[in-house]
Amino acid sequence: MSIPSTIVTPPLTNDLDIVIPTIRNLDFLEQWRSFFQPYHLIIVQDGDPSKKIHVPEGFDYELYNRNDINKILGPKASCISFKDSACRCFGFLVSKKKYIFTIDDDCFVAKDPTGQEINALAQHIHNLLTPATPFFFNTLYDPYREGADFVRGYPFSLREGATTVISHGLWLNIPDYDAPTQLVKPRERNTRYVDAVLTIPKGTLFPMCGMNLGFHRELIGPAMYFGLMGDGQPIGRYDDMWAGWCAKVICDHFGYGVKTGLPYIWHSKASNPFVNLKKEYKGIYWQEDIIPFFQNITLPKECTTPQECYIELSKLVKEKLGPIDPYFEKLGDAMVTWIDAWNELNPSTDAAVKIEPSKAK
Amino acid sequence: MSIPSTIVTPPLTNDLDIVIPTIRNLDFLEQWRSFFQPYHLIIVQDGDPSKKIHVPEGFDYELYNRNDINKILGPKASCISFKDSACRCFGFLVSKKKYIFTIDDDCFVAKDPTGQEINALAQHIHNLLTPATPFFFNTLYDPYREGADFVRGYPFSLREGATTVISHGLWLNIPDYDAPTQLVKPRERNTRYVDAVLTIPKGTLFPMCGMNLGFHRELIGPAMYFGLMGDGQPIGRYDDMWAGWCAKVICDHFGYGVKTGLPYIWHSKASNPFVNLKKEYKGIYWQEDIIPFFQNITLPKECTTPQECYIELSKLVKEKLGPIDPYFEKLGDAMVTWIDAWNELNPSTDAAVKIEPSKAK
Repeated sequence: MSIPSTIVTPPLTNDLDIVIPTIRNLDFLEQWRSFFQPYHLIIVQDGDPSKKIHVPEGFDYELYNRNDINKILGPKASCISFKDSACRCFGFLVSKKKYIFTIDDDCFVAKDPTGQEINALAQHIHNLLTPATPFFFNTLYDPYREGADFVRGYPFSLREGATTVISHGLWLNIPDYDAPTQLVKPRERNTRYVDAVLTIPKGTLFPMCGMNLGFHRELIGPAMYFGLMGDGQPIGRYDDMWAGWCAKVICDHFGYGVKTGLPYIWHSKASNPFVNLKKEYKGIYWQEDIIPFFQNITLPKECTTPQECYIELSKLVKEKLGPIDPYFEKLGDAMVTWIDAWNELNPSTDAAVKIEPSKAK
Repeated sequence: MSIPSTIVTPPLTNDLDIVIPTIRNLDFLEQWRSFFQPYHLIIVQDGDPSKKIHVPEGFDYELYNRNDINKILGPKASCISFKDSACRCFGFLVSKKKYIFTIDDDCFVAKDPTGQEINALAQHIHNLLTPATPFFFNTLYDPYREGADFVRGYPFSLREGATTVISHGLWLNIPDYDAPTQLVKPRERNTRYVDAVLTIPKGTLFPMCGMNLGFHRELIGPAMYFGLMGDGQPIGRYDDMWAGWCAKVICDHFGYGVKTGLPYIWHSKASNPFVNLKKEYKGIYWQEDIIPFFQNITLPKECTTPQECYIELSKLVKEKLGPIDPYFEKLGDAMVTWIDAWNELNPSTDAAVKIEPSKAK
């Protein structure tokens, strides 16, 4: 692959794959060309394998459809969702890179208030390569940013920060609303550019959206399972939320940082709120039990890899959420299958870096 | 007092006093006239009582110097700092209003990116009158703001929010840095206007700066004690931090919300970093023990008023921080004196609204 000279220099690292769940929007890669072309793309087709996905010239990519997934994973393919963008997590499995950036094909290049195009990928990499501050809140936001620092009263012993493993980016134009909010506020657009990156404190959960997301595959990848959604499943649109809750609990266990804020992408179109309501409605009430469940989890000290944490979580899911609906029994099993698949495809990380659980609060 | 017709209409509530610790800057009130004139001012002179403070025509104010404080509090005046802006908390004691806005006299009216003057007071009142979200993080920041809402995945049962009792505003120009950072970065200015208000999650501490601060006096006033600083004390510049740590722990106990972000004021000049270092240096290392102390506090359920919480805190301070330095024994006693003074001057809040400690995580 030759990189045209007009291409933006890869920022800081190129040990990163871009994972995209299907590309229906022909303009998508053209819009991102100058930013994405230096990177390897992993495209995971969510639906009918006989449909062709068009990838324009000049991109370095691999494409997997359902047949490929079945061939590679065998019976373990059951843990990968079908006809749902949750299938993207298969791309996390097969990547061999340190970092992942995942983005939806209805997300385009946004502009900052000066009219400059935002290199979302560069900002995610910057977020991931600079520390986070999960143990104490800094009121001037990211203290590692040029022109900012820790404010008076911030403990000096905490200024080294924590390793950042998740960078959660936001969306201009169509906000990421649930179906009820979409129905109530059909014309609401996000026009406010908040020029900040901040760390979500330890012990606090957040709604992680998979539209515009970067993460450290080696350190948190095994927790980035997008669950069972779509074809044959009772819910949808909770894939990224599920990954976010699981990943945050594991980040807190290891003392890793999770950032949210910049970069923005331009989210071009709202999905159908009626279809969304059908997908979401069980999740809307299940969630009322799921959140306290995750808020009250303390993982045992013996869990020293993300895989061990995740297996532990799967047991708790079956035990504590199983009584809500048989779906959670199935999901708990799928979580185990996912880790089996992860370890099979990532043998070196099976006995991954053993990490001392964080002692800081 | 007659309000000129050019005065901005008092926003939403005028059940609020503005507390200012000394006014040395003659231009200060003139700059804020259109925003402050509708309100009552309480000025607490921090130093030599024989020095006159000039208040321009047209303001409705009361002014207290050390002699007044001694006369009003008698022996209890020992809990009010002398020759330090920490004396401002005397103004919180004598106010009869529901809300307080406190500001330093080197803070001026800032402009937003469109060049519009920022009505800091109106923003604080808005922050205080709208709910907060301490139990779950909303990635689009304040969901109660025009044009924003809760994002997908935010539990519906938490969307009523919590009562906001603290609104912590920020500073353009001179950031609120500690002495070491001032020394290392003498030229750093905060030029970044972050257009956001966010809730500091439950269980997370933050460095509360008293320069530009609003709070609900009835619900959290008794925790807004600025400690023993200045004349005769071994530290300074930890007055607002102390109040912030105590208040946050009590807010978490009751499930109250604490917001930070907008409004900005223009902080005109940096204080002398050498003088600051002298004031701060003991705090810099004591803080390393104080933060874990506050992070690990759980107040007993039996504490149903902020006064009861504060008395409980005072005992813990003496017991756990006393061994660090005799100063904390003295501070623990002063905390009790402060509550005695509070109850004496605010008899109706003595047996204040009994509040059920929050059950939400």
